[in-house]
Amino acid sequence: MTKAKDRLIYLPLGGAGEIGMNAYVYGWGKPGQERLILVDLGVTFPDMDSTPGVNLIMPDIGFLKANRDRLEAIFITHAHEDHVGAVGRLWSELQVPVYARAFTGHLARLKMEEAGQDPGNVRIVAPWPETVAAGPFKVSFVPISHSIPESAGLVIDSPAGRLVHTGDFKLDPTPGVGEPWDEALWREATAGRVRALVCDSTNVFSPHPGRSEAGLPAPISKLVAAAPHMVVATTFASNVARVKTLAEAGHAAGRSVCLLGRAMRRMVEAALKTGVVENFPKTITPEDARDIPRENLMLIVTGSQGERRAASGQLSRGKYLGLTMAEGDTFLFSSKTIPGNERGVIRVLNAFSEMGVDVVAENDLYHVSGHANRPDIEKMHALVDPEFVIPMHGEHRHLREHAKLAEANGRRSLVVVNGAMANLTGATPHVVDHIEADRVYLDGDILIGALDGVVRDRIRLALNGHVIIQVILEEGEPLGEPWVELVGLPETGKSRAPLAEVLEEDLGQFLMRAGAKTLRDDAKIEEELVRVAKKTAQDEIGRKPEVTVVVSRLEA
Amino acid sequence: MTKAKDRLIYLPLGGAGEIGMNAYVYGWGKPGQERLILVDLGVTFPDMDSTPGVNLIMPDIGFLKANRDRLEAIFITHAHEDHVGAVGRLWSELQVPVYARAFTGHLARLKMEEAGQDPGNVRIVAPWPETVAAGPFKVSFVPISHSIPESAGLVIDSPAGRLVHTGDFKLDPTPGVGEPWDEALWREATAGRVRALVCDSTNVFSPHPGRSEAGLPAPISKLVAAAPHMVVATTFASNVARVKTLAEAGHAAGRSVCLLGRAMRRMVEAALKTGVVENFPKTITPEDARDIPRENLMLIVTGSQGERRAASGQLSRGKYLGLTMAEGDTFLFSSKTIPGNERGVIRVLNAFSEMGVDVVAENDLYHVSGHANRPDIEKMHALVDPEFVIPMHGEHRHLREHAKLAEANGRRSLVVVNGAMANLTGATPHVVDHIEADRVYLDGDILIGALDGVVRDRIRLALNGHVIIQVILEEGEPLGEPWVELVGLPETGKSRAPLAEVLEEDLGQFLMRAGAKTLRDDAKIEEELVRVAKKTAQDEIGRKPEVTVVVSRLEA
Repeated sequence: MTKAKDRLIYLPLGGAGEIGMNAYVYGWGKPGQERLILVDLGVTFPDMDSTPGVNLIMPDIGFLKANRDRLEAIFITHAHEDHVGAVGRLWSELQVPVYARAFTGHLARLKMEEAGQDPGNVRIVAPWPETVAAGPFKVSFVPISHSIPESAGLVIDSPAGRLVHTGDFKLDPTPGVGEPWDEALWREATAGRVRALVCDSTNVFSPHPGRSEAGLPAPISKLVAAAPHMVVATTFASNVARVKTLAEAGHAAGRSVCLLGRAMRRMVEAALKTGVVENFPKTITPEDARDIPRENLMLIVTGSQGERRAASGQLSRGKYLGLTMAEGDTFLFSSKTIPGNERGVIRVLNAFSEMGVDVVAENDLYHVSGHANRPDIEKMHALVDPEFVIPMHGEHRHLREHAKLAEANGRRSLVVVNGAMANLTGATPHVVDHIEADRVYLDGDILIGALDGVVRDRIRLALNGHVIIQVILEEGEPLGEPWVELVGLPETGKSRAPLAEVLEEDLGQFLMRAGAKTLRDDAKIEEELVRVAKKTAQDEIGRKPEVTVVVSRLEA
Repeated sequence: MTKAKDRLIYLPLGGAGEIGMNAYVYGWGKPGQERLILVDLGVTFPDMDSTPGVNLIMPDIGFLKANRDRLEAIFITHAHEDHVGAVGRLWSELQVPVYARAFTGHLARLKMEEAGQDPGNVRIVAPWPETVAAGPFKVSFVPISHSIPESAGLVIDSPAGRLVHTGDFKLDPTPGVGEPWDEALWREATAGRVRALVCDSTNVFSPHPGRSEAGLPAPISKLVAAAPHMVVATTFASNVARVKTLAEAGHAAGRSVCLLGRAMRRMVEAALKTGVVENFPKTITPEDARDIPRENLMLIVTGSQGERRAASGQLSRGKYLGLTMAEGDTFLFSSKTIPGNERGVIRVLNAFSEMGVDVVAENDLYHVSGHANRPDIEKMHALVDPEFVIPMHGEHRHLREHAKLAEANGRRSLVVVNGAMANLTGATPHVVDHIEADRVYLDGDILIGALDGVVRDRIRLALNGHVIIQVILEEGEPLGEPWVELVGLPETGKSRAPLAEVLEEDLGQFLMRAGAKTLRDDAKIEEELVRVAKKTAQDEIGRKPEVTVVVSRLEA
């Protein structure tokens, strides 16, 4: 055996090449024997374009499953779904302790319970200077401001030096709820030589310094006070500071406040239980809300991204728990549309417009981002002053821009994408390996691989429609005509005859002419019938559908 | 019979409630006997969310077909696809003269030819003061600036007074190519009492005055001159002014310029043929481009909206006509992403980022909108000073906001959505009728109604997957086991056995137990097998798939 040196590795399984499903592996040890920790285990959300019918998307943790004996622990930086969402579903495959701060841990425990796992596996940790020992690593949670309470960056000490993993962050000295950005604390916690800063890239294209949550209560209160009828506002439920600001604005305007949507109530409850919020304004139930005069009512609802099933989506189509929107009401999106969600949000906007509701959307007066903008990212670089910067939490374009930004400031940087394993030891960190790290879909109740072809087949059905052909053979001879069913295809083609009949005719003629050799061979029959069906469909309707052939043989 | 009065009607069949597939009907005469004209006949584009597999979306012109004898003519304001795109496909159902200016007419004729129609049905009209008589109407084309050459508003004189239909417009005194905004001309052409201004609403939410195309050549030239390697730029092909600006920037930087993508070449050819452009810089063929050193090359390509098949999409995935992108190249989106197209554009951005291409996107330095912003819309209201304003060319939220804007300025306004027929005569214009006016899909080569269920079935297949069940009955008794095929579903469910086998087992047991009465009745068998299959699937994989049952009966 060669005398392999210990090494420090970094391996993102999710989050580096997308905004979503964060999962970052760090390891220390001999190559292939590194002791591992995992930072975050989140989900991302499906869309009709690429993942129709899928419920949730999770990172492929095959590498960790195969090396479960080497995994020491999981650390969750904060309670956003893209950081904690897969903990419940995937924990049974990893079975190591999960560390988080109180609010995050509370929500992680709920996820464990829902997945039938023991919530005791989630251990609550106090912030820095407390540290958790996990194999060769010592990890501490350093509070940082973000759009959810109790977000934390991690200081990860390894035998090869210190790593700083920012988690999602912004530099907000007045975040309303949750800890403010505390430069002195961060200076102290990250002091000394830092090998690598693994840093949030989300807003690297936003040129101006980020704005504080504290700028919102005044304009929101003004809007709510001036609204003539009912006010409905939406934001991410996890943005407890914002939800509180909205509720306080309603309260100040003499309105009864009602939270609508499961996530909304759950987050506020979690914040109250764990003490990250005190004095949340009194709220009323949806039942009580129905009896309040509209002009004295404010609803705070889920669905800032136009989700069909969220409270906002249901209100846009009619009723939600007996409550409806009406002409003259105001609907406030205290949020920004995440790229890709525009169609859903626009659908809601127009539905409200048709009802005569005044919609306020995409207005910076009523929303600030939870992520560090370009100058804030530079500030973090300067503060931590690492030997090199590894951009994370971004699509490829964000990671690349972030690396270019670091380099423009004279720093070394390395883009490491999902599945790439970087060796952070030695003079020049570089990618040393590539791990299979695609995506796993929760599809109904079943986990399927993104490359299994299941969803690809569904996309093909949606694009092309489906022809089903049934053929019965008796002792090697066709018994009657083939039978054709169509799903998702026009009934009639160019010949003005029913498409199914035209197909049956052409398929029947083919079978009549087919030789005994073809008719003996199911695969051959299928191949030929698919070919004939596609050709006929192309002629009749100008498209080649998906074709399924069912051959039945009756033997006397 | 009552003495019905003549009336002036306005009936949008498309474009009023969406940005796309414009089609506006005007009529004059006794109720139900109005003589009609149609302004614009455009398409809109499908998306995976709501119209998977559809090629194009067109307005439902059933009302016009049913009243073809009353239709006098079609007027096309300009050559954007959402105004002219359906002329070729739908003309045969209307068969009336199509009037347009030279450039628009040239492109409309190409569409007629492609659809196998006589291009002579498109008649070229000179601009105002020339008028076209069409039944009770006199129509003239008043040049106006937009993001395509030779756009025109229409002045429509009727026995009930003058209508002004703006078409798409902006107020650009220096549009580069095409006629500048000419306030004096518009004042003259729209002089006198105007009954209604039917007005573009697209940018009603944009608060600042629109910017001129003339602001772009300087920054674009600077960017192209500074780029170290190949430059590739995309914009809407129909924005001939922009394409020319891009080509001139390449030329000035000593680069050979190559146009890529059919639409790009077609538009430039049309502009040259009809004389709306002179002195377009010399371009080279893709074959020649391959031999030019990259740093001396500029490509101008289709695909500003991230379309998969356009030149930009193909370059993002590899090669297009032998040309490839490489590290250090610059890709300029001289365009804005239309809401809903973000996912496709982001896919292209990230693919280029992975190649090391420097992408410039969503930057106002390199793009201006083709539509009038809020203050420009107000200027148009003031200039035409109509008795009332009818917002068009917008989603519902745009139309509503436009109407509110007019009303805030003391004008009367009326929101009229697709399918609503407004009576514009009398003191208070109002909606008097609702016409079936949905959408028609070009699906392969076939036109299908949006409500036919074909696309709905495809969406269901994509969301739920497809189970196909085959059952053979001989003399009323099941012959062997049912046979199950799965498409787009996980192979294995919770019981760890193949899902198809579990389904076959449960379906087989059901059939064995089924009574003779059920087995006699195909509809009943189908209903019950669908029920059993959905229940088993729900238990096994947590979802209810689409189910198709094929029952075959063999009678001895």
